[in-house]
Amino acid sequence: MPSRSDVYYFGAGPAALPQVVLERASASVLNHDNSGVGLIEQSHRSASSTQIVASACQHLETLLGVPKDGSYTTLWMQGGGTTQFSAVAYNLLGYWVQKSLDANNGDLEAVKAALANAKADYLVTGSWSKKAAEEAQRLLGDELVNVATNSKAATKKFGSIAPEETWNLTPKENNIFSYFCDNETVDGVEFPAFPASLEGTLVAADMSSNILSRRVDVSKYAIIFAGAQKNVGGAGVTLVVIRSDILKTQPTVDTLRKLGLPIPPIMCHYPTLTGASSLYNTLPIFEVFICREVMAGIIARGGLEAQEKVANEKAEELYSSLDQGGIYNVVPEKNVRSRMNICFRIEGGEDVEKAFLKGAEERGLTGLKGHRSVGGLRISNYNSIPQEAAAKLAGWIREFAASRK
Amino acid sequence: MPSRSDVYYFGAGPAALPQVVLERASASVLNHDNSGVGLIEQSHRSASSTQIVASACQHLETLLGVPKDGSYTTLWMQGGGTTQFSAVAYNLLGYWVQKSLDANNGDLEAVKAALANAKADYLVTGSWSKKAAEEAQRLLGDELVNVATNSKAATKKFGSIAPEETWNLTPKENNIFSYFCDNETVDGVEFPAFPASLEGTLVAADMSSNILSRRVDVSKYAIIFAGAQKNVGGAGVTLVVIRSDILKTQPTVDTLRKLGLPIPPIMCHYPTLTGASSLYNTLPIFEVFICREVMAGIIARGGLEAQEKVANEKAEELYSSLDQGGIYNVVPEKNVRSRMNICFRIEGGEDVEKAFLKGAEERGLTGLKGHRSVGGLRISNYNSIPQEAAAKLAGWIREFAASRK
Repeated sequence: MPSRSDVYYFGAGPAALPQVVLERASASVLNHDNSGVGLIEQSHRSASSTQIVASACQHLETLLGVPKDGSYTTLWMQGGGTTQFSAVAYNLLGYWVQKSLDANNGDLEAVKAALANAKADYLVTGSWSKKAAEEAQRLLGDELVNVATNSKAATKKFGSIAPEETWNLTPKENNIFSYFCDNETVDGVEFPAFPASLEGTLVAADMSSNILSRRVDVSKYAIIFAGAQKNVGGAGVTLVVIRSDILKTQPTVDTLRKLGLPIPPIMCHYPTLTGASSLYNTLPIFEVFICREVMAGIIARGGLEAQEKVANEKAEELYSSLDQGGIYNVVPEKNVRSRMNICFRIEGGEDVEKAFLKGAEERGLTGLKGHRSVGGLRISNYNSIPQEAAAKLAGWIREFAASRK
Repeated sequence: MPSRSDVYYFGAGPAALPQVVLERASASVLNHDNSGVGLIEQSHRSASSTQIVASACQHLETLLGVPKDGSYTTLWMQGGGTTQFSAVAYNLLGYWVQKSLDANNGDLEAVKAALANAKADYLVTGSWSKKAAEEAQRLLGDELVNVATNSKAATKKFGSIAPEETWNLTPKENNIFSYFCDNETVDGVEFPAFPASLEGTLVAADMSSNILSRRVDVSKYAIIFAGAQKNVGGAGVTLVVIRSDILKTQPTVDTLRKLGLPIPPIMCHYPTLTGASSLYNTLPIFEVFICREVMAGIIARGGLEAQEKVANEKAEELYSSLDQGGIYNVVPEKNVRSRMNICFRIEGGEDVEKAFLKGAEERGLTGLKGHRSVGGLRISNYNSIPQEAAAKLAGWIREFAASRK
């Protein structure tokens, strides 16, 4: 029977967690902090739970370098990234509407006229940004959503990001907000840097699969969100960092109704949730605790500067073993290769890929199958993958290539 | 330092869990089922996760006696009861609209005309049904929501359910759906039985705090939902049992838009979620695992018939010690006393209540403070409270009363 020390798990999420965090979590399930009660059993409004949420917020703000002047607010939510696809659309449209209403002295007809030219810009560079754009189209209607670039349209499959100058962006004065997915888990595509042409717009970014793996200039974003289950913790909580003025500038339900615009369900209404410090309803505190412990470890090891260095080194070793193998084809283009999700195919077809997987499993290297929608292989190189795991896998990549010659 | 065996926790949720379940969960965090990987780290689409979700559905269906003919579908969701306040309104309105559209050969004007007289009936008998009704009013608009009874309107505080003959129900032909909360956690009010005058309508019930504590005739309901964190497991998952024809009979986004009706965000669209067998996005499988283990235990002890007997006995012992104490005032009226949340005040005011709480804590009886919105004391007598815990607390109730004479 395999023990934890025999197995490295490279799954795309939920993903491996540090051993020390799992040990603390396992102990807390039975008796949290010597309270005599397990953490899962405790009230989300207990002093202990409140402290867990507050310190998780602090750790996140420390790591991301969130401005300390109150201009951003940190929130923990349920429902995963998919809930954020909806929440981002509702709340950023709401902000735009209220700003427009204020600028027009409350004249709804003027807001309606402005809306006729307004669009939210979506960069569709993989499966997740595609889903986010589709959800915006469902909720806001096609006329308010502009797909400014679609990597699949030109090439029939994801794996590239078209040059910014080719993007069909809405003129800034009519831009409601801009949206992109910083790292596409399924397709192995990562933005090398912040897309400069979005500057000056309200930018929402899905960082579910690369959050805390490199430094981020938070001030460029209106909203950053990430499902925890890849780089931060387990499934069940999502972290959201929101520019605070968005929370303060939202229309009433009555205004939205009069304009025929969608009303967010209460669990997608950011101001309600931040107003209750993430505890409007019962947040799974145990999952926040795991995130806090993971983040405490990253801080102790030197924060995001150190983590970024490790992430890049692991990714470089893996990509170079693939590039030098002679039998591997990395799926995305070189300039947008994800450091987190390394997607590749092996020459010779599926039987060869199966042989690679079998040999990997025999060596305790697991979770390497590609996403069911695209097939192939995928190495998820999240923060909790130790350097020795990446090195062992790189060794197998080289060994397998040598055996095929 | 207190160990688990010294402490009984009577919190209102998240709430105590069986020791054996916590032990299994604690082990699974480190190494699930000897896979070498912790359960929180594993893919929600792994064979092991799929099996956990499927068996959790089976256990729930066994316990509730869900018809085996496919006429109901079981779903696990995120977002707690509050998300269901929205989802119920969206999906049951959707069902009504599509039925009306079918009956009118697709004539949208006829549907609009029918809507002009249509209402969803809400029974407001406590804090949670009040919130549910408010959410329906936000999303559907006041004109589609009828508060058929409001326990607080007459008496200024919750604690009673008006006789059914006084309810201002919408005529059945114009009823979109009916909604009630079977047990009000904050106010200690429980429906003694299914409200007969709702029969013949689509009934949605929030059973978050009394699910699996008594037998239920599922066939009377369109939707039953419950946040897991009281009687079934930890926070982070919600169980939903839905009449399958509701899933099959939903309007398109285009139809809803044309009718000016709210479009559910994808995470509130039941057919999308059931279509993916609860795995449309990343469900926290660890929390489903805990629910499954809790339910397996209830089944092993004789199912809901046995559990109902135990729940009733514990509640009777606690209420009788309160009634006989001479110094305690149970908050709700006798005919609607909750077996799950026993809310009471002590004569002499808050200082006396504090003394009661202090003595309880010294005896390892914890989590007895009332909800912050109403004060007083509350004993949450969920399934995982052992009979010896209820007996020990009943003893303290008697002892404290004797000491005050």
